[in-house]
Amino acid sequence: MSALPLTPEHLSLNRLAEPLVDQLLDEADTLGLSVHVNDRGTRLVDAGLAVPGSLDAGLLVARICMANLGQIQLRHLPQAGWPTWVEIDSAHPVLACLGSQYAGWSLSASKEETGGKRFFALGSGPARALAGKEALFDELRYQDRADRGVLVLEVDRVPPTVVIDKILADCHLPADGLTLIVTPTTSPAGTTQVVARALEVALHKAHELHFPLENIVHGRALAPLPVPSPDGLQAMGRTNDAILYGGQVHLTVRCDDDEARQLAMALPSSNSPAYGRSFADVFEAAGFDFYQIDPALFAPAEVWVSNQQSGHTFHAGQCDMGLLRQQWLKE
Amino acid sequence: MSALPLTPEHLSLNRLAEPLVDQLLDEADTLGLSVHVNDRGTRLVDAGLAVPGSLDAGLLVARICMANLGQIQLRHLPQAGWPTWVEIDSAHPVLACLGSQYAGWSLSASKEETGGKRFFALGSGPARALAGKEALFDELRYQDRADRGVLVLEVDRVPPTVVIDKILADCHLPADGLTLIVTPTTSPAGTTQVVARALEVALHKAHELHFPLENIVHGRALAPLPVPSPDGLQAMGRTNDAILYGGQVHLTVRCDDDEARQLAMALPSSNSPAYGRSFADVFEAAGFDFYQIDPALFAPAEVWVSNQQSGHTFHAGQCDMGLLRQQWLKE
Amino acid sequence: MSALPLTPEHLSLNRLAEPLVDQLLDEADTLGLSVHVNDRGTRLVDAGLAVPGSLDAGLLVARICMANLGQIQLRHLPQAGWPTWVEIDSAHPVLACLGSQYAGWSLSASKEETGGKRFFALGSGPARALAGKEALFDELRYQDRADRGVLVLEVDRVPPTVVIDKILADCHLPADGLTLIVTPTTSPAGTTQVVARALEVALHKAHELHFPLENIVHGRALAPLPVPSPDGLQAMGRTNDAILYGGQVHLTVRCDDDEARQLAMALPSSNSPAYGRSFADVFEAAGFDFYQIDPALFAPAEVWVSNQQSGHTFHAGQCDMGLLRQQWLKE
Repeated sequence: MSALPLTPEHLSLNRLAEPLVDQLLDEADTLGLSVHVNDRGTRLVDAGLAVPGSLDAGLLVARICMANLGQIQLRHLPQAGWPTWVEIDSAHPVLACLGSQYAGWSLSASKEETGGKRFFALGSGPARALAGKEALFDELRYQDRADRGVLVLEVDRVPPTVVIDKILADCHLPADGLTLIVTPTTSPAGTTQVVARALEVALHKAHELHFPLENIVHGRALAPLPVPSPDGLQAMGRTNDAILYGGQVHLTVRCDDDEARQLAMALPSSNSPAYGRSFADVFEAAGFDFYQIDPALFAPAEVWVSNQQSGHTFHAGQCDMGLLRQQWLKE
Repeated sequence: MSALPLTPEHLSLNRLAEPLVDQLLDEADTLGLSVHVNDRGTRLVDAGLAVPGSLDAGLLVARICMANLGQIQLRHLPQAGWPTWVEIDSAHPVLACLGSQYAGWSLSASKEETGGKRFFALGSGPARALAGKEALFDELRYQDRADRGVLVLEVDRVPPTVVIDKILADCHLPADGLTLIVTPTTSPAGTTQVVARALEVALHKAHELHFPLENIVHGRALAPLPVPSPDGLQAMGRTNDAILYGGQVHLTVRCDDDEARQLAMALPSSNSPAYGRSFADVFEAAGFDFYQIDPALFAPAEVWVSNQQSGHTFHAGQCDMGLLRQQWLKE
Repeated sequence: MSALPLTPEHLSLNRLAEPLVDQLLDEADTLGLSVHVNDRGTRLVDAGLAVPGSLDAGLLVARICMANLGQIQLRHLPQAGWPTWVEIDSAHPVLACLGSQYAGWSLSASKEETGGKRFFALGSGPARALAGKEALFDELRYQDRADRGVLVLEVDRVPPTVVIDKILADCHLPADGLTLIVTPTTSPAGTTQVVARALEVALHKAHELHFPLENIVHGRALAPLPVPSPDGLQAMGRTNDAILYGGQVHLTVRCDDDEARQLAMALPSSNSPAYGRSFADVFEAAGFDFYQIDPALFAPAEVWVSNQQSGHTFHAGQCDMGLLRQQWLKE
């Protein structure tokens, strides 16, 4: 009995995402996207650089990021002080979030390589599992094989050829088998697809806490969706604040009650001394260096961990909607 | 960069609505509707005159009214004092709500013309954009062309032949290309499709306030769904009260912050001195003359206006669930 | 004008459920189910005995139970003290809930018949309407005819051959036309499909109160979804508590206001003196004999009854989320 019953023999993350990628390409106009096919056949989807993109594009990109192994929906929830929320559900949270959605593939190119500016991006989405460059995939015991792949890059420029070449080689994909989606955080699509990572953030922290991933059997999350800021720092800060101070996650696990309780207690962002300050402030105080920020902060605000083995649920943390309203609302 | 990227070259409101109209006709029995095809082939759908209709029929009619450019869903929301709510979302709020859903096409026939009672109705839905008789369409710079069209009439009788002829002529439609849906407000379908106009009411008031429509890029709304009253005045009053005292709208715009703030402040129904009285009372006090009612009252209760240009959100107004409970609940 | 417009001439409950049964069989792997086809061709779906099953399987089984005449969705609802809820909606509540979903078909086999342990189960779902063994079907004036049928058994073992034979005979089905789904309450699928009966519980009590079923035209419900307990008594207790102390139901009826008010007042679980104690305690105090428990307790916590005839809504009862949190959460 395993929480990771899905192996490449059963399914391919990239094949699962294909119908959604086709939908993204078909509906590009209505979604405010532009699609460029380069001379080798690689598709580059601009979801917010030279075109406006849209919130709906962000929801679709988020579903692609989860390899169609999760539902993502908007909700208008009254009485919580903010109108629009994103709800995420997955019966395969480990594969959907860590095997696919997590922005874990480090892609960089030096000035020499690009012939211009240095490039750096974290790749997320199904194609990560084709490349399998991250140690995480050894733990997941999963590697995908497919003729088509899709990768999402949360950057503010189109990736240089040298980076595209690297992706193609590492993923063992023909040039016309790759779709790259670029979503800057300052765009509606970018902000939406990041906030839709509320469940992934919980999974990632559970992994950091060395909770056995195969014991996580279901995941649900809710987070408030801010409007993107045109300022890169503020935009990034908002998406983090949405999860750190407004994210609510319900995990279902199978383990001893002690382990479930410990997971619940250690999971919320309030375990970090930095809790209570806006992420933009924390980031600035850390000299704009992610690695100087307490990793415990990267977590949802409030969690429930339900243990199927005992039938008990452990609850910890709480939202701080006041902080979010102060950041997001203006008189 | 425009909030109105959808032109007839890209799409036709009436063609967009076609699959939903087909669904309405196919499922007429289950939805409690009756369909009459007259001798010239025009389809008349009775959604609550001689047949009961249904809440589900109302949701489908509402989606037809928005030309399938919006999602409409029921929600059970606890802790707000009323159980059943309608949630509306559109990534194309201006075309969906003003280009299609708004009941703006004045259709009348004198006693002489009908050979019986005077007839008056406000037409809503996609066929308005085929006729283009309203000044609003000049501002929207949109006119539809299609072989099939659909119009919704919120009246308590079947329209006379002279009115059907006028619709056909103005829409440049063959007789067998038109579907007319009749939904009295006293019926479940009628009440539902009116409350599903919560977003449209906000768009209409934004237009009255001279806010540039092309700067509105996304719209979401939530409103409580009352049970229809068998009394026409009360039924109409309830659907208005649902929006005026329970409607919550979240608009995303692109403009200067001053304009966004002004829109938010001016938008809610509480800007009207009539705020706080049930709409049926206000209407009666106005001698049953709509044009004597302060237009500022026709608005949602609570609004958030998020400005993508600055990243700021402005919030104004508030719901009065107490008033609604007093009107709708009985000891 | 009738709330039961759907007759076998119009539709077959079992045929309506077929696409969902096919989906269950197709997606068995992903849903954590195992499917066994016996030598005569009858399909036995294990949704939580030897395999884990899943919450999503439970949602699908619940939709099968309602013969696809209802929508069932998960919701994350903040501020109610419990994260995950099940929302149910049906425009055909009587047929969906009483004609199909209600666990009303008593199926038993003695030690002699089974050649082993005595077997007892209550069958629910569309195949009940093929057998028509319950007096309820006379009142519903409905009997289904179909070549394929599906029945759900909330038990912790596979039914013996003698019981399968009885089902086949009573349903007039060929052996390869029957699908049996087994969901123990201690499993995620079992708990989910029971909590999804929140609306059915209200319909059943309305029937016990002799409210004319043909006057119920729409039903909606919401109930918190607990994690199953591995202990059979606790698991069963939790699903009951979810409805008794967290279930909210909105019925739309057509009748005199006095009848609607009486229905609303008599419906909630708080009408029972046993209200306020966990169901497991009540059951234990009753010597583990269902028939010793006050039937008035089997009801949702809070109800709204909206009368389309008058336009009035009657509200009664209230949730006790404190009791649920005390039962379900652990420090």
